[in-house]
Amino acid sequence: MKLNCDLGESYGAWQMGQDDLVMPLIDMANVACGFHAADPMVIRKTLALAAAHHVAIGAHPSYHDLPGFGRRSIHHTPEEIEALMLYQLGALEGMCRSEGLTLSYVKPHGALNNDMMRDNNLLRAVMEAVRTFRTDLPLMIPVTSNYREHQQMAADAGLPLLLEAFADRAYDDEGQLVSRRQAGAVHENPDIIVRQAKSFADKGGVFSTTGNWLELPADSLCVHGDNEAALEAIKAIRKALGKSGQ
Amino acid sequence: MKLNCDLGESYGAWQMGQDDLVMPLIDMANVACGFHAADPMVIRKTLALAAAHHVAIGAHPSYHDLPGFGRRSIHHTPEEIEALMLYQLGALEGMCRSEGLTLSYVKPHGALNNDMMRDNNLLRAVMEAVRTFRTDLPLMIPVTSNYREHQQMAADAGLPLLLEAFADRAYDDEGQLVSRRQAGAVHENPDIIVRQAKSFADKGGVFSTTGNWLELPADSLCVHGDNEAALEAIKAIRKALGKSGQ
Amino acid sequence: MKLNCDLGESYGAWQMGQDDLVMPLIDMANVACGFHAADPMVIRKTLALAAAHHVAIGAHPSYHDLPGFGRRSIHHTPEEIEALMLYQLGALEGMCRSEGLTLSYVKPHGALNNDMMRDNNLLRAVMEAVRTFRTDLPLMIPVTSNYREHQQMAADAGLPLLLEAFADRAYDDEGQLVSRRQAGAVHENPDIIVRQAKSFADKGGVFSTTGNWLELPADSLCVHGDNEAALEAIKAIRKALGKSGQ
Amino acid sequence: MKLNCDLGESYGAWQMGQDDLVMPLIDMANVACGFHAADPMVIRKTLALAAAHHVAIGAHPSYHDLPGFGRRSIHHTPEEIEALMLYQLGALEGMCRSEGLTLSYVKPHGALNNDMMRDNNLLRAVMEAVRTFRTDLPLMIPVTSNYREHQQMAADAGLPLLLEAFADRAYDDEGQLVSRRQAGAVHENPDIIVRQAKSFADKGGVFSTTGNWLELPADSLCVHGDNEAALEAIKAIRKALGKSGQ
Repeated sequence: MKLNCDLGESYGAWQMGQDDLVMPLIDMANVACGFHAADPMVIRKTLALAAAHHVAIGAHPSYHDLPGFGRRSIHHTPEEIEALMLYQLGALEGMCRSEGLTLSYVKPHGALNNDMMRDNNLLRAVMEAVRTFRTDLPLMIPVTSNYREHQQMAADAGLPLLLEAFADRAYDDEGQLVSRRQAGAVHENPDIIVRQAKSFADKGGVFSTTGNWLELPADSLCVHGDNEAALEAIKAIRKALGKSGQ
Repeated sequence: MKLNCDLGESYGAWQMGQDDLVMPLIDMANVACGFHAADPMVIRKTLALAAAHHVAIGAHPSYHDLPGFGRRSIHHTPEEIEALMLYQLGALEGMCRSEGLTLSYVKPHGALNNDMMRDNNLLRAVMEAVRTFRTDLPLMIPVTSNYREHQQMAADAGLPLLLEAFADRAYDDEGQLVSRRQAGAVHENPDIIVRQAKSFADKGGVFSTTGNWLELPADSLCVHGDNEAALEAIKAIRKALGKSGQ
Repeated sequence: MKLNCDLGESYGAWQMGQDDLVMPLIDMANVACGFHAADPMVIRKTLALAAAHHVAIGAHPSYHDLPGFGRRSIHHTPEEIEALMLYQLGALEGMCRSEGLTLSYVKPHGALNNDMMRDNNLLRAVMEAVRTFRTDLPLMIPVTSNYREHQQMAADAGLPLLLEAFADRAYDDEGQLVSRRQAGAVHENPDIIVRQAKSFADKGGVFSTTGNWLELPADSLCVHGDNEAALEAIKAIRKALGKSGQ
Repeated sequence: MKLNCDLGESYGAWQMGQDDLVMPLIDMANVACGFHAADPMVIRKTLALAAAHHVAIGAHPSYHDLPGFGRRSIHHTPEEIEALMLYQLGALEGMCRSEGLTLSYVKPHGALNNDMMRDNNLLRAVMEAVRTFRTDLPLMIPVTSNYREHQQMAADAGLPLLLEAFADRAYDDEGQLVSRRQAGAVHENPDIIVRQAKSFADKGGVFSTTGNWLELPADSLCVHGDNEAALEAIKAIRKALGKSGQ
């Protein structure tokens, strides 16, 4: 079970996150591509840090929306989605060359990610873009109870699929994340977070908020590094999963 | 003698140039990469048009300055120059993939181009970036009386160099373009433009404004397509150089 | 009956519209405020041109979306709407000072305009912002069959309201503009455009596409100046309405 | 002796500074206007915080350069400088209205500030802009040994002038700040900072790095609030100057 985290989200004079503390603790870095965060210098620094810690590089493309950090839905045609994806994937792979790196996967960010999980036409456009960029480049999407449909879509599009789960978020009976607006959506208790991480890793699923078992096979857990508690949670997960370097 | 032209300089709702009229008349398209002009949709359209007319794709990277169209000097360290070059080259090559195209050369835009021709450290940083991106990717720079020095720098950096000249601009005794602020800097007379094009093509140089011969071997002539007169000038140059399709 | 037109929509090196040809033909200029188009230099030039032709200045604020020209919906809270309105109104009024001008009205642009006409909470936030900026500053909105409700909302908010109509757009039975996606949405025939302009001016309404009379009292007609035909249409409308200077 | 500080420098999802901790300790807030930092929501929040602590609002306009945080010189004509100043002053004053506030002064930011202190034509353009905006609005500039010349320029332009000094920066024999690139440019020792603050407040000047007395009459000291040490320095200065609320 790999751990992935959103990184490289600074911009110009603005610092975000604590990438130097998180990078040693993760396996996969979702690197912002300049459309919701990051500029070429931030990307360069993030890639060098990832290289130093042997962390795999994922592109983290988004809608073009710096003021909204890519969290606001912006309507696009499939052609536009493909264009903005290819631009960002190319930009990040171009920058990888100065570090002797290459892209290992693609994970859409924010509103683009949410929108494509609600709209299969959008998801297909994202898949098209990734496959057009490189036929062996995996797309990473959240695992839900519809994962078999998503796997079929990826197979039809001809690209590998990676599924990610969240150790610190509650799941509803449809295998969707409980909305952050609802109480209990985010687990704060480290024990619960670790238990859920182990459940994804060892049993391939979790119990929903109402106690139903959800089969949710995940390749990777999404972790956060915003504060001290978040870093401690990653370390606890690493230990529980028997990963080195915790 | 190839003809190159800056294209793909629209942005969002704003149209610039008349790419559909110019593309059939040129051999090499310098395509804006999103930092001074163009967005992913504009780039996509420009690449498709170039593909339809079998025109070679050049990246036209610049300082990050949409409001100033990349025409204003912005101080950068060599590391920053490399980062912003790799980002833009990668973005454009990423977009080339949807059209089955690839980058054929790189020609810096505007103030970045001017600054690097005045500052060898900057020029070296640009060369580093292009070579890092792809070892066989040529950099195109203006031919001046210092062209041998520039060829040596490119050889040292390990990348191919292309030299471009201007048919419609007067040259001073140092083989530099006469500043646009001076009278006579830009040739309006089509006969003079065609004669200068032929001089570059057939004799490998031109006479300076004071009548001195300048050896200026050029691989390509930079043409413009902003208006009807500019289009007519390209057609006249094509005819004079014995190029097809005029 | 006043004629209003969207102007000042250039940006940096990108030209849009033909403001110098339109300005002499209109009474009210809706001036872009920098969020979907225009930069300080474009605004300055537009204001000087308006002053020379004694045209009233309206602020034309929008969502913050240069790449999308303010035509894409972006979700905002009422507080955010008020903040981005006040910023843009202030910026434009600040620039008016160098020309001895002042804002005469406010007309929201693009998606912000569409969204507020579908969502009374948004419309109320826009009204709040205009009234907060200056209590005697009118808001201009499209006239629909709901115009009395809108007048009541403006009265409640304590600000003057101006209603605008379109001479070149078909109206449906609800007094809404027929969507541009439908055939017949836009009148191309100059005679029809002039007849509709006169109908708004003389009779306070128009017939819908199905032949029903719509009472739509308008203070101003929105005209366009994008091309020669559009300019001719404005001149024909001026003549038909007995306005000088046609 | 008033204390002023640069505030409101967050942008979108990016936080900068600790405005809530600094605001209670200062008299004058230099509020970013959206060209190097801040968006309408950040400005709104900053103004509300300033109002709560009865802190005077200064506009902190800059070159239009978010990626460079306004720290990079961008060449502009005097007309352009006036346009971008008026836009930003207007925008900030527009937003002041929702809080019942008004602008109390203008202090240019970063590279614009540095450039105008090296180029009297630029300084005159800045003065013109402020005076055009409001005839009683003071401009705040760094005090140097040329302060009498600057006072004369302000008198000629017809606007009030405020002079600011730095308690934590060394001054050279010309009364200029020692470049940050030189050792000893920035005082770290709190005792030295407090002593220099008192020297400006009580004696109207400081000793240069070579021990020469510099007459530098200041209306305000510029303080910083980036970290705990900076906050402690402000408190120590307040105490030494006999200001309340330390």
